[in-house]
Amino acid sequence: MSSHKLCMIPGPIEFHEDVLQAMATPATSHVSPTFIPALGESIELLRQILFTSGQPFIIAGSGTLGWDMTACNLIEAGENVLVCNSGYFGDRFGECLETYGANVTHVRVPIGDAPQLEAVSAALQGKKFKAITITHVDTSTGVLADIKSIAEIVRKESPETLIVVDGVCSVGSEEIRMDAWGIDVVITASQKALGAPPGLCVLGVSERAIGIFKARKTPVANYYANWNRWLPIMNAYEARKPSYFATPAVQNVFALHVSLKQIVAQGVEKRFVLHKEASAKVKKVVHDLGLKLVPTGLDHAANGMSAVYYPEGVAGTDLLPKLAAHGIVAAGGLHTEIASKYFRIGHMGISVTEPQRGHIDATLNALKSSLAECGYKVPQ
Amino acid sequence: MSSHKLCMIPGPIEFHEDVLQAMATPATSHVSPTFIPALGESIELLRQILFTSGQPFIIAGSGTLGWDMTACNLIEAGENVLVCNSGYFGDRFGECLETYGANVTHVRVPIGDAPQLEAVSAALQGKKFKAITITHVDTSTGVLADIKSIAEIVRKESPETLIVVDGVCSVGSEEIRMDAWGIDVVITASQKALGAPPGLCVLGVSERAIGIFKARKTPVANYYANWNRWLPIMNAYEARKPSYFATPAVQNVFALHVSLKQIVAQGVEKRFVLHKEASAKVKKVVHDLGLKLVPTGLDHAANGMSAVYYPEGVAGTDLLPKLAAHGIVAAGGLHTEIASKYFRIGHMGISVTEPQRGHIDATLNALKSSLAECGYKVPQ
Repeated sequence: MSSHKLCMIPGPIEFHEDVLQAMATPATSHVSPTFIPALGESIELLRQILFTSGQPFIIAGSGTLGWDMTACNLIEAGENVLVCNSGYFGDRFGECLETYGANVTHVRVPIGDAPQLEAVSAALQGKKFKAITITHVDTSTGVLADIKSIAEIVRKESPETLIVVDGVCSVGSEEIRMDAWGIDVVITASQKALGAPPGLCVLGVSERAIGIFKARKTPVANYYANWNRWLPIMNAYEARKPSYFATPAVQNVFALHVSLKQIVAQGVEKRFVLHKEASAKVKKVVHDLGLKLVPTGLDHAANGMSAVYYPEGVAGTDLLPKLAAHGIVAAGGLHTEIASKYFRIGHMGISVTEPQRGHIDATLNALKSSLAECGYKVPQ
Repeated sequence: MSSHKLCMIPGPIEFHEDVLQAMATPATSHVSPTFIPALGESIELLRQILFTSGQPFIIAGSGTLGWDMTACNLIEAGENVLVCNSGYFGDRFGECLETYGANVTHVRVPIGDAPQLEAVSAALQGKKFKAITITHVDTSTGVLADIKSIAEIVRKESPETLIVVDGVCSVGSEEIRMDAWGIDVVITASQKALGAPPGLCVLGVSERAIGIFKARKTPVANYYANWNRWLPIMNAYEARKPSYFATPAVQNVFALHVSLKQIVAQGVEKRFVLHKEASAKVKKVVHDLGLKLVPTGLDHAANGMSAVYYPEGVAGTDLLPKLAAHGIVAAGGLHTEIASKYFRIGHMGISVTEPQRGHIDATLNALKSSLAECGYKVPQ
């Protein structure tokens, strides 16, 4: 552990010791009386975290699998989908939707901007969309979309359109209220603000969306991601009964279960506040250092991560290794058009909710020192 | 650990302490210099374990995802696939293939029999098949297919047909020599004889199959399972370069890496022998106890597991809890037609290669005691 560098990227994030301990649970049958309640209760806890009466899914796979799960189960070939595209992940989700036969319309914004309500509204007038997708936090830019307002517009102007939120980098760090806001699908993964290691694809699906899925006219064109396979499994585990379709990632589920219990025990509302406060602190230091965020305004900057341009004269190939030498792992850029011009810091999970660990301070101090070592002079 | 019951089911199996320790590796970036070689070297080690110069894949997901990976990448809609069906998993693989548009022909055998060479040969005369699938060990029956002889027939009578082996319950415990036997795809998962916790789908694909994949005429109808996405990622990790498509299950890969290193260090050939010896020992005790195996002959009984009928007058609802009380978790039946009539024991991985742990003896002793407690009298 002594040589461990803090993993301050926008996922995977630092995990609680109890979560890691659960990862090392000895071999356990996926239908054993110790495992069944862990998966069953995790499903129940996700309802509380997502504020929904809908159906959570916990499946072995990456968050990317959540795109397939959404596209293959809810979209039938030839249906229109509107993608609010704020960067890398909007492009990719669009490609995934097209794989399953969707006609995709992108509403794009300049890099650093959030989806514009007027543009969404205008697009909805053009044709009928089966679904709209919104990347809640685009991990490539740190841009936060106003999903509440977008959902409001969609519900008003095209009430039948399913509202799909890619919350891979937002669930657990950004406010989401599925049922109250009328959101139909939230896609996420275990390794970001849900605080567990990577390996689990996590979904919340509204009762309305499940109904629309059940009424689909064409068969689901995917086997592993087919909700017809998984719904009986999720229901069985929640009823504390053994069931089998594919072997769950037992240890990862034990770990997620520990983290979800911690999240609910500390309080989801409090978690939102703590992430806002930690983000404000990071953004202030970034600003005081004379650095510029990739998001063009603080009102649409994520609370769980910060994407920051390198200052004039400082290269990422120089700064990132210096940060690592100070014990902090940060991430480089991901948005292809500006990839070499910015870096990304994650501030989610225990690094935020347990400030006594000093992760955020250590990161900001390392940033200051590393910039100085790069020859950068903080503006007075 | 003191209350830990031995997980003697046909996967997940008991893990080595070092494997479990690797599962609890603190948060690590998926593109960090500590993680990249772990995934890169795991790919290389899989080539040694599968005896192939082909392309391994290690992807977050269950073994079931390997069916999708095979079907969506190698089969185009309307192509014929021959399924050697020896039980539950043949039925399911067939359904998966049909999902991606395959015309599936099943060659079925009675419960407990292995695929018959004559029947396979006859089916190959009927039409041209793009691929043949064989469940190497059907986890539902413990039947071992003679993949070497089947591959020989296919190579002779229909050399263009791709040979796909479902090795979920065989890789690491049964002899497989991909290149020498002319096998194109081996599908497996982390939690059986590869000795790591569940959560990773593992594939070996021959160079020939990759070539046929690259020459396909229609687009791949799946996003997450698309080899076009994963080939550059696997190549990058093997070249020890960072790359990103979907976040790998970092801790699970660290764990698999530890187990693969152990397997290669102990010797793959020796591993085959040890599993045969352990299986012979289990089968002898089963026979001496007057119990009957589900496989109809020892020549086609798996070496990594045993499926055994309950004796007259003993119910599974009685025997399995008694085994658990003796600290042994065994599995019930899975083949729907006989599910309540038999149970399954796994004998793979460290339970076999490290006999000093006493897992097999403990299991057999618990079986004897539990049968006696059920009122069963061992025949003299």
